[in-house]
Amino acid sequence: MVPAEKISSLQNPRVKQLVKLRDRRPRDEAGVFLVEGYREIRRALEKGVRLTELYYAPDWFLGENEPALITQARAAGAAAFELSKEAFAKVAYRERPDGLLAVAPQWRRTLEDLVLPAAPFLLVVEAIEKPGNLGTILRSADAAGCHAVIVCDPVTDIFNPNVVRASTGVLFSVPLVVAESEPVRNWLRSRGIRAVATTPAAETLYTAADLRGPLAIVMGSEQYGLSDFWLKQCDLTVRIPMAGQADSLNVAMATIITLFEAVRQRA
Amino acid sequence: MVPAEKISSLQNPRVKQLVKLRDRRPRDEAGVFLVEGYREIRRALEKGVRLTELYYAPDWFLGENEPALITQARAAGAAAFELSKEAFAKVAYRERPDGLLAVAPQWRRTLEDLVLPAAPFLLVVEAIEKPGNLGTILRSADAAGCHAVIVCDPVTDIFNPNVVRASTGVLFSVPLVVAESEPVRNWLRSRGIRAVATTPAAETLYTAADLRGPLAIVMGSEQYGLSDFWLKQCDLTVRIPMAGQADSLNVAMATIITLFEAVRQRA
Repeated sequence: MVPAEKISSLQNPRVKQLVKLRDRRPRDEAGVFLVEGYREIRRALEKGVRLTELYYAPDWFLGENEPALITQARAAGAAAFELSKEAFAKVAYRERPDGLLAVAPQWRRTLEDLVLPAAPFLLVVEAIEKPGNLGTILRSADAAGCHAVIVCDPVTDIFNPNVVRASTGVLFSVPLVVAESEPVRNWLRSRGIRAVATTPAAETLYTAADLRGPLAIVMGSEQYGLSDFWLKQCDLTVRIPMAGQADSLNVAMATIITLFEAVRQRA
Repeated sequence: MVPAEKISSLQNPRVKQLVKLRDRRPRDEAGVFLVEGYREIRRALEKGVRLTELYYAPDWFLGENEPALITQARAAGAAAFELSKEAFAKVAYRERPDGLLAVAPQWRRTLEDLVLPAAPFLLVVEAIEKPGNLGTILRSADAAGCHAVIVCDPVTDIFNPNVVRASTGVLFSVPLVVAESEPVRNWLRSRGIRAVATTPAAETLYTAADLRGPLAIVMGSEQYGLSDFWLKQCDLTVRIPMAGQADSLNVAMATIITLFEAVRQRA
């Protein structure tokens, strides 16, 4: 393989473009997003994501497996660039960079693209605001074996660097659809998938509800909870019992509790 | 009430001391810790914590309830100081400060201090490394109604500002004991409390275990999991089924899943 191009100037156009890609508009215009970190890049490659560019800085490496990962990414078609320590510090968005940053193409999946079993187990999240929460929720859905996650009326871009990071790269493995709430509701109905929503005001305990069969767990936003639309349109609302402070559980915690109760019942 | 002393110099000794209190040694030497934020300070006051000092900067206030909280803290004995916007920016450790920062006395509880019901529901965490994880775990224990949390062989100071923050002030409401593993194990045994530990290598599913009666859920550290000591000394090991990536669940997620399964069984 030919040696990677070396970049040490902080004024290099590629360095500047990487910094810009932290913001949504430049990301969407270029149709790409950032994937930082060994674990995240490895997962992207494992899932067959075609990374377009790979930037690395040996001065920041934490282990010994980085060269093999770089070779793998280049063999899969990524253009490679070696950065100086300072140049990498500028393009990294993590506090403790590990010397690896890739650029991946964005994708769009629609509801019709989903390939689902007879009794799908889905997670629908509405208007989640914090990228870290969305990433953590994706991670939970992956651990619980959800067949897909549907992000309704998003206020957070699924390609935000903090979503990628908090998801630890699970973004690449869980089928993810972004859509408006109403078509999602119609699609669930047409497929005979029950929508069960979690809200503190519900009477039924989440453990008393039947969470088997075709199921979509619906979770509201951090600040506002579920919208009136979903409160009215779902088939059942359930609540998680709360022993402590009223706001002890955040949306990511409530999601994982509900998902794993469904896993228990569906086993 | 007399007007609060005003501080605008970044060189003021109180400002410098507040910055120092981010580090453990000065905290332990002074026997105090920092409580930042409206919600956290409110919870401290609700629980009868005697705040020694309260620093506030109206330029940073987000709402309209701050003056009432300040009055309440002063009435409860806190010395109050009004800071300039710049001085508060220096003492705040949050990215988005809300203009309120208090100093509270540290406390020490021992196992013998705990007042427990006949069938206690406890959480034991071993050597948790990240303050954010410890705070989140405290929040989960509060929501699940744990009677106490026991932190074994701590590598994270429970008075770290990020523990206080991630716990959203629950640190003040959940009885918390810091102790070495061996005396904790002996104490559990003497009280007839079963120790059930979560580890990926266990055969029994956590949902198949009996989690009723006197119970301590034991969780290991982020990087190393449970120590050999706890793996050998606990009464039962259980595992959480994992559908996705091997490391999909972090310790905080595994903790909340296990705690809420216990809540379900104990209801």
